[in-house]
Amino acid sequence: MSKKNLIVGQSGGPTAVINSSLYGVVSEGFAHPEEIDHVYGMVNGIEGFLNGTVLDFQEALPGEKLESLKHTPGAYLGSCRYKLPESLEDPVYPELFRRFEELNIGWFFYIGGNDSMDTVSKLSRYAAQTGSPIRVIGEPKTIDNDLVHTDHTPGFGSAARYVASTVREITLDANVYEKKSVTIIEIMGRHAGWLTAAGALARKYQGDNPLFIYLPETDFDQEIFLTNVEKALDKNCNIIVCVSEGIHDASGTFICEYDSSVGTDTFGHKMLAGCGKYLENLVRSRLGVKARSVELNVSQRCSASLISATDQQEAVAAGKFGVQAALSGETGKMVSFVRETTPDGSYKMSCGLEDVNLICNEEKTVPQEWITADGSDVTEDFIAYARPLIQGSISVPTGEDGLPAFVYRK
Amino acid sequence: MSKKNLIVGQSGGPTAVINSSLYGVVSEGFAHPEEIDHVYGMVNGIEGFLNGTVLDFQEALPGEKLESLKHTPGAYLGSCRYKLPESLEDPVYPELFRRFEELNIGWFFYIGGNDSMDTVSKLSRYAAQTGSPIRVIGEPKTIDNDLVHTDHTPGFGSAARYVASTVREITLDANVYEKKSVTIIEIMGRHAGWLTAAGALARKYQGDNPLFIYLPETDFDQEIFLTNVEKALDKNCNIIVCVSEGIHDASGTFICEYDSSVGTDTFGHKMLAGCGKYLENLVRSRLGVKARSVELNVSQRCSASLISATDQQEAVAAGKFGVQAALSGETGKMVSFVRETTPDGSYKMSCGLEDVNLICNEEKTVPQEWITADGSDVTEDFIAYARPLIQGSISVPTGEDGLPAFVYRK
Repeated sequence: MSKKNLIVGQSGGPTAVINSSLYGVVSEGFAHPEEIDHVYGMVNGIEGFLNGTVLDFQEALPGEKLESLKHTPGAYLGSCRYKLPESLEDPVYPELFRRFEELNIGWFFYIGGNDSMDTVSKLSRYAAQTGSPIRVIGEPKTIDNDLVHTDHTPGFGSAARYVASTVREITLDANVYEKKSVTIIEIMGRHAGWLTAAGALARKYQGDNPLFIYLPETDFDQEIFLTNVEKALDKNCNIIVCVSEGIHDASGTFICEYDSSVGTDTFGHKMLAGCGKYLENLVRSRLGVKARSVELNVSQRCSASLISATDQQEAVAAGKFGVQAALSGETGKMVSFVRETTPDGSYKMSCGLEDVNLICNEEKTVPQEWITADGSDVTEDFIAYARPLIQGSISVPTGEDGLPAFVYRK
Repeated sequence: MSKKNLIVGQSGGPTAVINSSLYGVVSEGFAHPEEIDHVYGMVNGIEGFLNGTVLDFQEALPGEKLESLKHTPGAYLGSCRYKLPESLEDPVYPELFRRFEELNIGWFFYIGGNDSMDTVSKLSRYAAQTGSPIRVIGEPKTIDNDLVHTDHTPGFGSAARYVASTVREITLDANVYEKKSVTIIEIMGRHAGWLTAAGALARKYQGDNPLFIYLPETDFDQEIFLTNVEKALDKNCNIIVCVSEGIHDASGTFICEYDSSVGTDTFGHKMLAGCGKYLENLVRSRLGVKARSVELNVSQRCSASLISATDQQEAVAAGKFGVQAALSGETGKMVSFVRETTPDGSYKMSCGLEDVNLICNEEKTVPQEWITADGSDVTEDFIAYARPLIQGSISVPTGEDGLPAFVYRK
């Protein structure tokens, strides 16, 4: 068998460990020199590839440099948000495969979430339809943890660890004053509340902050929320509330939309504040208590210092497993995580493969049985599920400038 | 000489190393058993002390536990914002000193910023006036770095390291897409721009992001800002801008106030967004480019994972130095940092003492010569000043729950 080349791309929003998955794919690619010749990276995903931007990892990250990917957040290869046409008759497909042939590609890997798995699905179906020997494998990635047919996704554990640690630190910060206060923490998640639920991991004992956790999986009632907070203020001095950015009421209206109709800047343009800012104002004006809000924002997906070692190791393992699967003939699959039942109840994860067509464009939300009946908290089942995923810290090397030393594309 | 007791309090907003200063005071207190009997902590500052809340460190944090203070953010003792009356004739002063005598206090330490130094000033003047032998020493603390008569303040280095690291990570995050974008990062600092200036430390080479840095020390012109950003978009894909929360225009109006007159929630209450959110909307609406804003918020002062080892060590040293100074008879002083001129140009800091009356209620801003003429950046002199303060990382122990293990008051 003559040697072929491997190509890998990254797509969608970055995470703290999307480059660990990349490291897994590339290092495993290097480990099979009898089958794989070059390991290429497409810059800015399939969109950049169509513009002809490709790099060779042997030149870009030789030797030890490759290791630095494991602690570098952001997408080393750059990303894109590009949806391939639904019709496989579209001329973009033969164009893509012509370029694959030019580069002698035998294996194609795409690291991303729902939308990226849609690309994997289409490319693998087109290959099957045209008899192309190219094998196409999806590598899961998303802080949202919303991919189906996998226990969880790489990126979630580190984001959850960031959220839990930061909620704990903000609690410490809030507790310094004796004056009653309410802090609203707004956490990423438009439709799935996994990451907001991770705020519960910050608790050190029952009844500890955050006292309330609101996910987009349930309807949010502003009056019940105010009553809950008011009652809690009787017994607690400083209250922390975690909310998903995507919380909405029973009518389906996002809570963040409640201020958008009236807020305009001096040029008459709408100012959109998040639901955290809205609830801060609501609590202050209705309950007359000191209130503030914190939007955790992009650090949730790009903070290196709170990477979960478990998440990082699993991202690398998923990358490697995907390459091994492709070499053994698999295609049209996404690497999944399967949680094993161990006799002593300890956490053990292994990699599996799932039909990518069953994954793309689907969304996994937090199950209702892991949310308390009143919708203001998550259950112990969620804690038991998520706790193992945030275990272990990594050491990020520091450069001469005193800051984390990351690796950058030239 | 009969033994006396030491008491220490924390006041004002917390920092990542305010507990390192506390560790310095308490451990040095323990190191002088021939002179110091008990080491007490006042809970919630002078306000809590008036309510009678005092703890004994030998009981609260025995043995090794004391060490945990060094990586615990927030104020272990709790804090307050309480201004003592201007008139030393006020009955609160004899009341305070009666309590000091009851507790056999010989040494009083207060860790805080401008306002806390005002407390130190008043208590030391009252002691002098009444012939009380109690020695009163101020320990500097503020992320704002705005205390006069000291090279810098404990707390600034860690906050600056958090800002610089996070700006670098947000830049990585912004760079993943090829679509032009502008990210506004809003950084703490109402009147002094030291912390915002620290965004410049994130640059890896000349011309790297953040491209613009705006401090409250200069007037901000919205039209010039838009022109600058528009020009920069010709040559750069993703632009990062750092702004102090306190930027204002030539009329003295805070930029964040430009939306406040029109933004109201559904109950008719004013919604105050920050200047970052305002500028995000301004850039999007006026330049038609993708824009987002990130408010770094309280993590600037409570993130443990990016504590600067230099800052931590100096906070401990300042704490210890203050106790030694008090034991040698000093009072009415604040511990200061003096930067030494070394033959090889390396960084060396020593502790000094300054008259607290010259420090309280004063504010040190970034000197105009460290800001570029057009007010859109800081100079190399600032970089040279700040770079040594963010050096070194610390290792925060992880608990069984996978999160940073802090120490808490019972």
